[in-house]
Amino acid sequence: MNGKERVIIEHIQPQVDGGAFPAKRIVDEVVQVEADIFSDGHDLLSAEILYRHEQGRKWHVAELLPDVNDRWEGSFRVEKPGTYFFTVQAWVDKFKSWHNDMLKRLEAGTANHTDLLIGVAHITGILETYPDMKQKDSAFLQHVSKEISAKNRKIETRAASLLNHTLLETAVRYPLKDNMVKHPQELAIIVDRKKALFSSWYEVFPRSLGENGKHGTFNDVVRFLPYVSELGFDVLYLPPIHPIGITNRKGKNNNVVAAPGDPGSPWAIGGKEGGHKAIHPELGTLDDFKHLIREAADVEIEIAMDIAFQCSPDHPWISDHPDWFYKRPDGTLQYAENPPKKYEDIYPLNFETDDWKNLWKELKSVFTYWIDQGIRIFRVDNPHTKSFRFWEWTISEIRKDHKDIIFLAEAFTRPKVMARLAKIGFNQSYTYFTWRNSKQELTAYCEELTTSHLKDYFNPNFWPNTPDILPFPLQGAGRNHFVQRLILAATLSSNYGMYGPAYELMENAPALPGKEEYLNSEKYEIKDWNFHKRRSLRKLVSRVNKIRRENEALHNMQSLRFHPIDNDAVIAYSKMSADGRNILLVVVNLDPEHKQGGWVGLPLHAFRIDPDNIFEVYDLLSGSFYRWKGEYNFVELDPHVIPAHIFKIKRL
Amino acid sequence: MNGKERVIIEHIQPQVDGGAFPAKRIVDEVVQVEADIFSDGHDLLSAEILYRHEQGRKWHVAELLPDVNDRWEGSFRVEKPGTYFFTVQAWVDKFKSWHNDMLKRLEAGTANHTDLLIGVAHITGILETYPDMKQKDSAFLQHVSKEISAKNRKIETRAASLLNHTLLETAVRYPLKDNMVKHPQELAIIVDRKKALFSSWYEVFPRSLGENGKHGTFNDVVRFLPYVSELGFDVLYLPPIHPIGITNRKGKNNNVVAAPGDPGSPWAIGGKEGGHKAIHPELGTLDDFKHLIREAADVEIEIAMDIAFQCSPDHPWISDHPDWFYKRPDGTLQYAENPPKKYEDIYPLNFETDDWKNLWKELKSVFTYWIDQGIRIFRVDNPHTKSFRFWEWTISEIRKDHKDIIFLAEAFTRPKVMARLAKIGFNQSYTYFTWRNSKQELTAYCEELTTSHLKDYFNPNFWPNTPDILPFPLQGAGRNHFVQRLILAATLSSNYGMYGPAYELMENAPALPGKEEYLNSEKYEIKDWNFHKRRSLRKLVSRVNKIRRENEALHNMQSLRFHPIDNDAVIAYSKMSADGRNILLVVVNLDPEHKQGGWVGLPLHAFRIDPDNIFEVYDLLSGSFYRWKGEYNFVELDPHVIPAHIFKIKRL
Repeated sequence: MNGKERVIIEHIQPQVDGGAFPAKRIVDEVVQVEADIFSDGHDLLSAEILYRHEQGRKWHVAELLPDVNDRWEGSFRVEKPGTYFFTVQAWVDKFKSWHNDMLKRLEAGTANHTDLLIGVAHITGILETYPDMKQKDSAFLQHVSKEISAKNRKIETRAASLLNHTLLETAVRYPLKDNMVKHPQELAIIVDRKKALFSSWYEVFPRSLGENGKHGTFNDVVRFLPYVSELGFDVLYLPPIHPIGITNRKGKNNNVVAAPGDPGSPWAIGGKEGGHKAIHPELGTLDDFKHLIREAADVEIEIAMDIAFQCSPDHPWISDHPDWFYKRPDGTLQYAENPPKKYEDIYPLNFETDDWKNLWKELKSVFTYWIDQGIRIFRVDNPHTKSFRFWEWTISEIRKDHKDIIFLAEAFTRPKVMARLAKIGFNQSYTYFTWRNSKQELTAYCEELTTSHLKDYFNPNFWPNTPDILPFPLQGAGRNHFVQRLILAATLSSNYGMYGPAYELMENAPALPGKEEYLNSEKYEIKDWNFHKRRSLRKLVSRVNKIRRENEALHNMQSLRFHPIDNDAVIAYSKMSADGRNILLVVVNLDPEHKQGGWVGLPLHAFRIDPDNIFEVYDLLSGSFYRWKGEYNFVELDPHVIPAHIFKIKRL
Repeated sequence: MNGKERVIIEHIQPQVDGGAFPAKRIVDEVVQVEADIFSDGHDLLSAEILYRHEQGRKWHVAELLPDVNDRWEGSFRVEKPGTYFFTVQAWVDKFKSWHNDMLKRLEAGTANHTDLLIGVAHITGILETYPDMKQKDSAFLQHVSKEISAKNRKIETRAASLLNHTLLETAVRYPLKDNMVKHPQELAIIVDRKKALFSSWYEVFPRSLGENGKHGTFNDVVRFLPYVSELGFDVLYLPPIHPIGITNRKGKNNNVVAAPGDPGSPWAIGGKEGGHKAIHPELGTLDDFKHLIREAADVEIEIAMDIAFQCSPDHPWISDHPDWFYKRPDGTLQYAENPPKKYEDIYPLNFETDDWKNLWKELKSVFTYWIDQGIRIFRVDNPHTKSFRFWEWTISEIRKDHKDIIFLAEAFTRPKVMARLAKIGFNQSYTYFTWRNSKQELTAYCEELTTSHLKDYFNPNFWPNTPDILPFPLQGAGRNHFVQRLILAATLSSNYGMYGPAYELMENAPALPGKEEYLNSEKYEIKDWNFHKRRSLRKLVSRVNKIRRENEALHNMQSLRFHPIDNDAVIAYSKMSADGRNILLVVVNLDPEHKQGGWVGLPLHAFRIDPDNIFEVYDLLSGSFYRWKGEYNFVELDPHVIPAHIFKIKRL
């Protein structure tokens, strides 16, 4: 211990749970760092950030400057994927303290010879500590030192150099870091490629893309790519592509008995053809799949795979590793059950198996197998029903060799469980957006995502529907309502997705009243979608995704701010690009039936708009534009025309 | 690593800065523990608190039960001073999960033979794990096991024992803790004697207690004890009692030149008679001082000493340890200075001295010397101008041998510095109460103290005045105002104090306009107080302190709640004893000039009062009482009679 250390550094941000988990950022982002830094007494301090990429040994340095209330702020840019480490160091700055005290003494006329000599000692210390400093600087410091020492002259004359900035600026570049304190924790930041924060997902069942009622194949997906591309999505997510079990296969509408020809649920994984590393034969071959990955890449679409760690009774693991499953006293294995509900077509894995090491290895190898085939994005099914420690290990192991993999956690469960999955490595997360409808619900939830601890590690992905969920408000809903939810998802969150055909074709029939399942769910049957029918949102989806691509404001979640409007049926919010140049204002009428309007209040100062000047708002959806002035402006939306404005704000 | 562990334990409370510092509690308090506990899947969990006193090796166990949102709650009582450690452990409870699932299956009529056999296996596991369980319990479990196994009977009959509570209750007492997770951190709680949380301080300068204009002595303080006792204080705090320097001694009203006979500031410590372990000769001898400590103890008053680590130019350390001070280039030592202000009568210590180890030891020995003489409470002068690391070490070293010492930090400085001093060991802290006057200011500040992170480690001590501070509102103020601030200090905070004679005698003249110093400050001269003059608050102070002693509600800070009242000039708040039996409602008119009133809203549910029943509020100040009914009741206060009610609430 060095008892001479006087500086305290605490509450460094960003940090997650006291540094137990890394924060998340994306490539090229500027990481804002804050810390409480203070010491006893009233000496002035200096502080700096140390940061490095995991592959670099050398620490880079960035400045920290005091804000208010002993809070210091600084930043650094993260330039490549991987883990960055950073910490903070600070010291009592003797030179700055002396300089500051001298200015006060000079003003009060109390400076004396000895006070000046203290400064000479500091300058001498600097010159001795930095023998290799720039010639120009050492000459300057020697000159000042001599000037200050000139005993026969007036104090004010000797101290003249203190009053211009050169002395302080020069000395600050050669700090004397006596008894410097370095915070002992090296905090981690996981840096992902940009897609972790900005992505547009489209979910489709390949088997429904066949022609003339045939089972669809990967080649059909290739033929479908132009449609997805025209819609403007950049991630095409396929439900599990593995062989589907025959034993206890589910029939249409989740019937416990399958009729002959029923294809079964793609999530009942495994058959005689193999398990999680095999491909359902009717979809095609591994080569077909790799071909699809390449063709998609050509139109800037990534294929996302669905990884669901559960097994049909026909999965090879059942016979090869019966000890990976729960055994019942009668010798049978335990199917999935949430009493009184039973899921006889799937067996859950037992993460308390004594053979957990081999189980973990095998599960990890599923990911690496598909990574080797070219996959970079995984949507993980129900990760909250598998061991947290397994995920933490697997994701960190995979990141060692592959910094570009994105794991999306499909967990619709309790808040703390969802947060934990994000902390232990999932790069994106499904959210409660699906059930947040009113202005109050949307505002509270989005503010939780952007201002609570979640902001540092939880990248939300907003879905208005999934194959499992046709939310109640969309049941029997009309076009207005589908448009409204689409625009909310696509503009509130930088990551969003939709369960495709059902969404743009506005499927709205539930299986049963009071349930959120689709009638004739695609999970249990092959659908014959008429993608080109007139009643489709495809043109609007295409426009919304184009707006997303072209406006950097929508590429982040953090800049989201809600704005007052005197009508609870209308919600208004804005987003801004990091450089402040691109600002979008979105106003949505949440009432699908009636025209609604109100006065929207804008933070003109934050938008850098003069309240006395006219500015323009250009609606990227309709093409119309308005000239506004001042903080409050009137907006009205007719849901039967279009329920939203996506205004680009232009300073004139 | 045990990869079979599935439980996550996080965000345990109480903890300070992620466990970097201990929380604080007092003897006999019940520590409320919370933690987020969950696992993958939907199995039921069990959890418990482990806790122990630092002197005990054995962990005690207390139950944790789930509340909402994966938050678990439990508690344990701390019974003696010292440091307690606690942590949390939890496991997937297979028996409880099976039992819970079975109830659902039985209700749905889906339970089968194998489901029942799983329970038999669990019961067998329990019997094997606890061979020494109570005879009665093992007989019962064996009986149930047999009943459940009876293959020839109906499922419902076999499962009958699941429907009464005995089986679950018995099994829970013999948990199977497979793959239990114990949180790796042992969190610390410093337990103090009650006075750390509940104390009433009176500050007096012994030298002003002499008779016929003579310099007061410890024996004069002994004669003064009945007065302090009648006022009802239990801590009598004396400014430094050490020899006062002669060199550069300050004169009256902080004059830089002392006149002959000027006694100097007691904070300019050290003379030829000695330093921090010596006694100013005019006050008496060490024996006189020890006699005072004993006499005070007889009337349940503790003597608190003032420890100010700074030295007059005549302090022995100056010659014995010149390297403990800042040396100037001219060879002189540096006096205290906050440019352009100079304090030539004191030299600060240099905590960056190379000889810091000896400096720390000597400073610590000052405390242990006075502890050996019988002192248990120290008011530490300006701790924020001395090294934090020094305080942390000293206080923890002293606590090793003395668990009953109370250190009060006299730091009126920035929020984070004050918080840090409390974190590193100070048991009580001066606060900003002195400058919080309006309803909004008082409410916001007190809520920060009772609801932010401060609540776990910062014990506030509210002072309406100090020898250094005559706050602006009290300058020229009348009795109403002094009464108001006294009642606020004494009822908002469980620790409070006053700079005595000046307060109850309502000294209200400032040294200079715009400054908070007293005119003719007692710091620089001997005062001749007329304690028995008519214009005194002594009777009121005596009554307020009696109310404090007799009402347990005022012995804590945590129960403080503010209540709505439709008048910004009136503030209303309540406190409650831990058992909920003693409830006080305080209403203060903050306007010293005009009668003010309003409707006070009370949380009748929290007070366990039926909104349809009449209840009584008995004013402990005036003796009058009122019968109230319902949530809102009217209160009016005339500051010229008395500006406050201290109501005791009685359920009828």
